[in-house]
Amino acid sequence: MDSRTGLPVVGMVGGGQLARMTHQAAIALGQSLRVLAVSPDDGAALVAADVRIGRHDDLAALRDFAKGCDVVTFDHEHVPGDLIRTLAAEGVVLLPGAEALRYAQNKREMRTHLDHLGFPVPRWSAGPVEDFAAEVGWPLVVKTATGGYDGRGVFVASSMTDVPAHADVIAEEFVDLRRELAAVVARSPFGQVAAYPVVETVQRDGICVEVLAPAPDLDEDLAIEAERLAIEIAVRLDVVGILAVELFETRDGRLLVNELAMRPHNSAHWTIEGARTSQFEQHLRAVLDYPLGDTDLAAPVVVMANVLGGAAGGMRIDERLHHLFAAEPRAKVHLYGKEPRPGRKIGHVTVLGDDLADCRRRAANAARWLTDGGDPHA
Amino acid sequence: MDSRTGLPVVGMVGGGQLARMTHQAAIALGQSLRVLAVSPDDGAALVAADVRIGRHDDLAALRDFAKGCDVVTFDHEHVPGDLIRTLAAEGVVLLPGAEALRYAQNKREMRTHLDHLGFPVPRWSAGPVEDFAAEVGWPLVVKTATGGYDGRGVFVASSMTDVPAHADVIAEEFVDLRRELAAVVARSPFGQVAAYPVVETVQRDGICVEVLAPAPDLDEDLAIEAERLAIEIAVRLDVVGILAVELFETRDGRLLVNELAMRPHNSAHWTIEGARTSQFEQHLRAVLDYPLGDTDLAAPVVVMANVLGGAAGGMRIDERLHHLFAAEPRAKVHLYGKEPRPGRKIGHVTVLGDDLADCRRRAANAARWLTDGGDPHA
Repeated sequence: MDSRTGLPVVGMVGGGQLARMTHQAAIALGQSLRVLAVSPDDGAALVAADVRIGRHDDLAALRDFAKGCDVVTFDHEHVPGDLIRTLAAEGVVLLPGAEALRYAQNKREMRTHLDHLGFPVPRWSAGPVEDFAAEVGWPLVVKTATGGYDGRGVFVASSMTDVPAHADVIAEEFVDLRRELAAVVARSPFGQVAAYPVVETVQRDGICVEVLAPAPDLDEDLAIEAERLAIEIAVRLDVVGILAVELFETRDGRLLVNELAMRPHNSAHWTIEGARTSQFEQHLRAVLDYPLGDTDLAAPVVVMANVLGGAAGGMRIDERLHHLFAAEPRAKVHLYGKEPRPGRKIGHVTVLGDDLADCRRRAANAARWLTDGGDPHA
Repeated sequence: MDSRTGLPVVGMVGGGQLARMTHQAAIALGQSLRVLAVSPDDGAALVAADVRIGRHDDLAALRDFAKGCDVVTFDHEHVPGDLIRTLAAEGVVLLPGAEALRYAQNKREMRTHLDHLGFPVPRWSAGPVEDFAAEVGWPLVVKTATGGYDGRGVFVASSMTDVPAHADVIAEEFVDLRRELAAVVARSPFGQVAAYPVVETVQRDGICVEVLAPAPDLDEDLAIEAERLAIEIAVRLDVVGILAVELFETRDGRLLVNELAMRPHNSAHWTIEGARTSQFEQHLRAVLDYPLGDTDLAAPVVVMANVLGGAAGGMRIDERLHHLFAAEPRAKVHLYGKEPRPGRKIGHVTVLGDDLADCRRRAANAARWLTDGGDPHA
């Protein structure tokens, strides 16, 4: 407990934009997020008052960080499970726990376990890729079991020459998908679950560039099925905090679980302005075992566009922001304090409205100003 | 400029809840507010990364604080004007400037100047109270020219025995008011002005306890007049940043200017969730000379209730929060990290909806949980 405020202390391992936005939400709850950052220049370290510098895979750093925290949670899934278990055995409350987190850390374990529990997943194999190809045909999707994100560690292979010589991969069928969806829920230790409306996520080169809330023209039965899937996974895997379930909607109307994330997730950044309770506040409420907040949409249509770093040079970010605000006074901007590098997520913008096409156009326009200063040739 | 982010540095003098919530807004803009706090336990100092400890009336502390700031702004009006002028002469950009701020710092100067400019104010006098009483009759409102807030420094006097023996007071007629309103606008150095919908502020014992947005059943002409008044005052006084104009609506349908504040103001806390752009983001955009954001309401009705500290003892604040969230899942909570003392503003709650009575009931219920743990006898 923080003796200055009488409120519990939440520590978050990792100092990226998720911790940055969680700190922002923590302020309203009377708190100040304690952040374990690798560098003082990490996005969250730039804005939080209580920052410790240390690595997420260093037991001593984690142990020191956890002292005085009522609960420790995560900005990413890179904390090794054995360290989490060691700290838990020493009495640290870590949420989500190691037994849940392993399924967000290792795709093989996730696929195996979801299969075992009967959740719908693409056909997949942990065996020799050649054998699996003989069974389902090329192309295949080959994924590293651990460490992938934003399209890294995912390969579409048309033959064995495309399969990376990586020791630890799984292979999956190339799903004939209509689109990708995400079902995001929060769950508390008490067992309360709150579900956000199911959204569509739009990817480019394996990176999420746009999220449409609610998912346009989603069949109501499928929406309910997606929500039910996410809730059941949260319950069966004993997830505490935010669980994002990335889903494929196939052309023949089925849902397949693609990925799991057990932390605030890009597919729910739209909730900051677009839902009555943001995913960041919800994650805090969940790990603190507070009753969860209202997940209703704040507008009929909410569109979030990621801001990816563009080519170096050109207009200063400050000037870009200036033009963006003039061009799109309704766009809500979130910058992460990160140096822009091509393709790197440096922020996002959100637009609320009534008309999907209009919101998408405005969000894309706003994001473009930040990416390339409005220069279509940049 | 912050070399880590390429964005300008805004410094705010004063570490209270206004700086705390401005920092929260700064995070989204890619920034980290630099805060000059008197104590490391000040509400903003608990949550901001870049905190300097020093007094707002200490020139050396202010000078040191201003180094590296692109613009310095204020969480309160207690910085002496001569210090602001000294720093400005040294090249520091301070917004609003001393020439505007004096009218938020000294009620006599404000009344004199607004009179001079022809803005409607209550009948008032800086002369002997007895003489003024002979002219307009008792009761009178006697105010200290400087230093008052939250009802302090304001006295309703029924005779000379009620007039405080204070060297520097002004006297005003006791206005037969229907209610109090607030017109809040933002203005940038470029000269752009953005106006929020006019709200009703509900006071108890001289402290604002509730804000209703938009002001219920406000005559449209009066709403336009209130907005026009605030815009004209901002322009004529060369205010930069947020200007809150507290108004009396008289029973005979006139508007009179009561007070001015040139900083984010309690009467616009509802804008965090209730408007498309919060007053805190708007204040930052204004002092940075960014184009201003959309001031539209995010719901038909928005009610903000202040949370005042209740009697000591009883339920822990953490537990109160727990019950509040269970009782009012739609209430948005903002706690300021302040020790609860009876009557002290320790936070606020906001409820959005369609029905005024329902929103007021829910906001009051939520605020009560935080004040007294739901105990009507506390």
